[in-house]
Amino acid sequence: MQMKEKGDDNVVFIGRKGIMSYVLAVVTQFNNGESNVIIKARGRAISRAVDVAEIVRQRFVQGISTTDIKIDTEEIEGEEGPIKVSAIEITLSKP
Amino acid sequence: MQMKEKGDDNVVFIGRKGIMSYVLAVVTQFNNGESNVIIKARGRAISRAVDVAEIVRQRFVQGISTTDIKIDTEEIEGEEGPIKVSAIEITLSKP
Repeated sequence: MQMKEKGDDNVVFIGRKGIMSYVLAVVTQFNNGESNVIIKARGRAISRAVDVAEIVRQRFVQGISTTDIKIDTEEIEGEEGPIKVSAIEITLSKP
Repeated sequence: MQMKEKGDDNVVFIGRKGIMSYVLAVVTQFNNGESNVIIKARGRAISRAVDVAEIVRQRFVQGISTTDIKIDTEEIEGEEGPIKVSAIEITLSKP
């Protein structure tokens, strides 16, 4: 699967901050004129990525919808060598 | 969004058991002749649902693919009234 890189403008990568930080980041992207914003997360943050997408969709941006959801497995460097983690990529789009 | 109910034969609902219990449940459904198996989860179990789908797809069932992923918000009864939780539904299908 082709995944956009973290550095891309319209990508919000979910980490360990409070959930509303990420909601705000997504809303800001749309307000800056992006038509699509991609929410990415790995491991346990996947549940939070779904929360962020649902909160933005239902409460913050009119008429937005989930246009694509991909899941995949990524290999990251653990302390004792590479480990596999699940990843998700949720695309929200303006009509 | 139309979601299948927990009682349906080809639905595996992710709870608090070890992850391999759910992997086994999904594999068993395919071995029993199902062409599609739907993995459902809510809240923090969403990350585990993605893990289950990815483990089944990569390690246990040949040629299987993720054919549909939906996210939604559901209302469940909390101790102090209804609360909203995110939900995911991942469909795995045989070719």
